[in-house]
Amino acid sequence: MSPPGRPKGESLSAQREGSPVSAGNWLDEVAFDERGLVPVIAQDAVTSRVLMVAWANREALAETLAGGRAVYWSRSRDRLWRKGEESGHVQEVREIRLDCDGDVVLYMVEQHGGVACHTGRASCFFRRLADGRWQATDPVLEDPELVYRK
Amino acid sequence: MSPPGRPKGESLSAQREGSPVSAGNWLDEVAFDERGLVPVIAQDAVTSRVLMVAWANREALAETLAGGRAVYWSRSRDRLWRKGEESGHVQEVREIRLDCDGDVVLYMVEQHGGVACHTGRASCFFRRLADGRWQATDPVLEDPELVYRK
Repeated sequence: MSPPGRPKGESLSAQREGSPVSAGNWLDEVAFDERGLVPVIAQDAVTSRVLMVAWANREALAETLAGGRAVYWSRSRDRLWRKGEESGHVQEVREIRLDCDGDVVLYMVEQHGGVACHTGRASCFFRRLADGRWQATDPVLEDPELVYRK
Repeated sequence: MSPPGRPKGESLSAQREGSPVSAGNWLDEVAFDERGLVPVIAQDAVTSRVLMVAWANREALAETLAGGRAVYWSRSRDRLWRKGEESGHVQEVREIRLDCDGDVVLYMVEQHGGVACHTGRASCFFRRLADGRWQATDPVLEDPELVYRK
């Protein structure tokens, strides 16, 4: 039995998810894999470089939207990974995008410190194929030993 | 028994892979998954937009390097996918990059026709999260029905 005024077809659970009602819906459109994860590309909103690729679960995506900072799921540590929690290299998320199949997410970010990679480089994609081998083309901006000792 | 002059430790199969011998080595540094696949991000070398994410196996990467056009592995069709073979939306690959873990590849491409997505849009990441829902922000540049009937 529905209370008066409830729009037909709108479930109680949807109403309970808070305001706006659509808060949970965007997550339902993400095609998480069998582990409940989706790959996330972080792209620098300023330089346009692709910085890194990591994973997110529902909670990571929800917290990213709510807090405005990039949150991922660390498979090695099996817990939420708030990017920059150790290194200080926080990512402010300007935009969240989803691809046509719904199975890849894109964060457009402002990268604190200009370093996204654990090697101390701007981008994790610092190796370029040239003359038949992978050549590191980007400088190390910060000593990773110092970054993770902070 | 080795013929005279063959360097110690160099296998026949390595020699057979053609010249330069290092041709196969860059592929050995790619961390393919248990299916022999690696995710590949295609980024537009002109607009810097992230266009799409697909998969590649060793053969797809080797052919991409050799031919200069983006080749992927289609999981649904279980065969090499020469991007643009049906749509005409070929990708000229200007650069191939590898991330720090070796498990994601990046193609920097020039996108023929300015359309990478099968929906007829420039990028597969045409949906942006706004007001709690995914909103299509990019125009359809080509009717996909026409593209795939060519």
